[in-house]
Amino acid sequence: MSSDATEERVLEAVRARRTLVNDALDTDVPMQSPERLYEATRYLLEAGGKRLRPTVALLTAESLADVDPLTADYRSFPALDGSEVDVMSAATSIEVIQSFTLIHDDIMDDDDLRRGVPAVHREYDTETAILAGDTLYAKAFELLSNTGADPANGVAAVSRLATTCTQICEGQALDVEFEHRDAVLPEEYLEMVELKTAVLYGAATSTTALLLDADADVVDALYQYGIDAGRAFQIQDDVLDLTVPSEQLGKQRGSDLIENKETLITLHARQQGIDVESLLESTDIDAVSEAAVENAVATLDEAGSIEYASNTATDLVERAKNHLEVLPDNDARSLLCDIADYLITRGY
Amino acid sequence: MSSDATEERVLEAVRARRTLVNDALDTDVPMQSPERLYEATRYLLEAGGKRLRPTVALLTAESLADVDPLTADYRSFPALDGSEVDVMSAATSIEVIQSFTLIHDDIMDDDDLRRGVPAVHREYDTETAILAGDTLYAKAFELLSNTGADPANGVAAVSRLATTCTQICEGQALDVEFEHRDAVLPEEYLEMVELKTAVLYGAATSTTALLLDADADVVDALYQYGIDAGRAFQIQDDVLDLTVPSEQLGKQRGSDLIENKETLITLHARQQGIDVESLLESTDIDAVSEAAVENAVATLDEAGSIEYASNTATDLVERAKNHLEVLPDNDARSLLCDIADYLITRGY
Repeated sequence: MSSDATEERVLEAVRARRTLVNDALDTDVPMQSPERLYEATRYLLEAGGKRLRPTVALLTAESLADVDPLTADYRSFPALDGSEVDVMSAATSIEVIQSFTLIHDDIMDDDDLRRGVPAVHREYDTETAILAGDTLYAKAFELLSNTGADPANGVAAVSRLATTCTQICEGQALDVEFEHRDAVLPEEYLEMVELKTAVLYGAATSTTALLLDADADVVDALYQYGIDAGRAFQIQDDVLDLTVPSEQLGKQRGSDLIENKETLITLHARQQGIDVESLLESTDIDAVSEAAVENAVATLDEAGSIEYASNTATDLVERAKNHLEVLPDNDARSLLCDIADYLITRGY
Repeated sequence: MSSDATEERVLEAVRARRTLVNDALDTDVPMQSPERLYEATRYLLEAGGKRLRPTVALLTAESLADVDPLTADYRSFPALDGSEVDVMSAATSIEVIQSFTLIHDDIMDDDDLRRGVPAVHREYDTETAILAGDTLYAKAFELLSNTGADPANGVAAVSRLATTCTQICEGQALDVEFEHRDAVLPEEYLEMVELKTAVLYGAATSTTALLLDADADVVDALYQYGIDAGRAFQIQDDVLDLTVPSEQLGKQRGSDLIENKETLITLHARQQGIDVESLLESTDIDAVSEAAVENAVATLDEAGSIEYASNTATDLVERAKNHLEVLPDNDARSLLCDIADYLITRGY
């Protein structure tokens, strides 16, 4: 299938599930009292987002159960042990965790914009943003511990999600630490990306598989799919941060570079002898012009650094797709394959 | 038994379990990489604390299993269904949640001191404090989902803890909201205290009871014990904030009053026609003298407001103790009774 046709197929699959996930989020994270708190918990959820992680969770369920996509009820989904499981709650719990981490990360990174709207701590205040994140955190565990799965599978899924959250915190701590360090090795960067971003993709697939009573080797392979796809996703994000116009990104283009955040691209450039700090004159995001970013990107491009990152992401996507061989050969598996491709072909 | 003898018995029981809980916390929240993150997660845990909540959890286990206090191994504790359960992890998970909420609350309330040492966001920075809290949050769920309990009981306990965390966030949101509101009703204040403080005592008893396979009515009664004892604890905390010297409190005496935080005491005083805002001239915690606090307290005392709060706490303790009748009549139950008394007789 052509790349365009693949992308269209992925976007259609994501769109269809996004609508269902958004409806489920209205139920799973309802507006209630205290109003200001719950408005803030819902604010970023309502600001949009592609819902890639929950889509991956739902497709994992559909492939494992070998059902035709979008034919089974996600709220009482047929598990392999014959029980019925609310896999939608597993999917929303992942999105809710993602949302909590974005809210807290934006405070820590002092970022003003997210998904084209003010970050929660800007729209409300830091106190409310901390608390909104904490509330979503709890909601995710409420959701995942009430799926109706066999309790042994339920408790395994919860344990997996908890470990994932610990790792995400470790990844964020490393990310902050790297900003204050002189030298970061590419493998250290990749470990940080694995912890900060990829493990949540791993949780999306593996918690779903656990709830559905999949065998341990299947759970492991699906986890690895998530890890490799998630790492590719983050590396592509770093590429897009440099190559996509600000309007399309929903935030300032080149913000990582402006704020001296290490990425695989800057690490490669350093190894080529480029003085990364001097690429831009200011670290103030409002003082850097689009043209200055354009020039800096041209230098990184000539050094082969952007291509290096892209190639790394492509390799990871190939590894991700190979892990899917544990799944039955069906449409949902094929879509998971295409999504892995899409993660690095997407324009934003 | 005399009140002094009761207090000595409670302190001895708490001391003995505190040592074990502290050792368990070293295992359950180990120092690891990234170092700065884990140092910050351990910083407040190491600063002390009476470990009342985990002590209540462990005593609940001992009474339910009807074992002599301190004779059974908390890590493989005899459940009512014949299985062995790590009730220590349930106990440490509660302390870890408590620690996470204190770290985030201190950021939100901009408090400088906690347990006589700088708050985590002062000792480190706000970013690290947010992340340390988030890490502890995940650790608590890791701990509670790995106790070896029957999975149905394990997943019920996790669900209970998640709901508890949601409630704590709601309570903190109400607490912040009340600071900006003209009129707060005493019943609204009591609801806030239930959410912010009491539910974690309820979780200490009820998650332990769930893990040990106690009947639903026993779990409910023990939960109510926690709620009533926890509300009494918080009301007493408000009294102590006014009546105990700063050195003993580990923070500025009268800080709630200085910062215009509503308590049952100020709400009662308002109903007596006292202009609470005018009791102290400054809302700056460093500008208010011990003598000024002393004068303000005298006014509240004359209005009967401190006695009103103390009486409310006493009533709650009586209700708490009545709930314990579901437990076997043994030493551990008797200690849970004494702890309820101690919550309002303690000096700090």
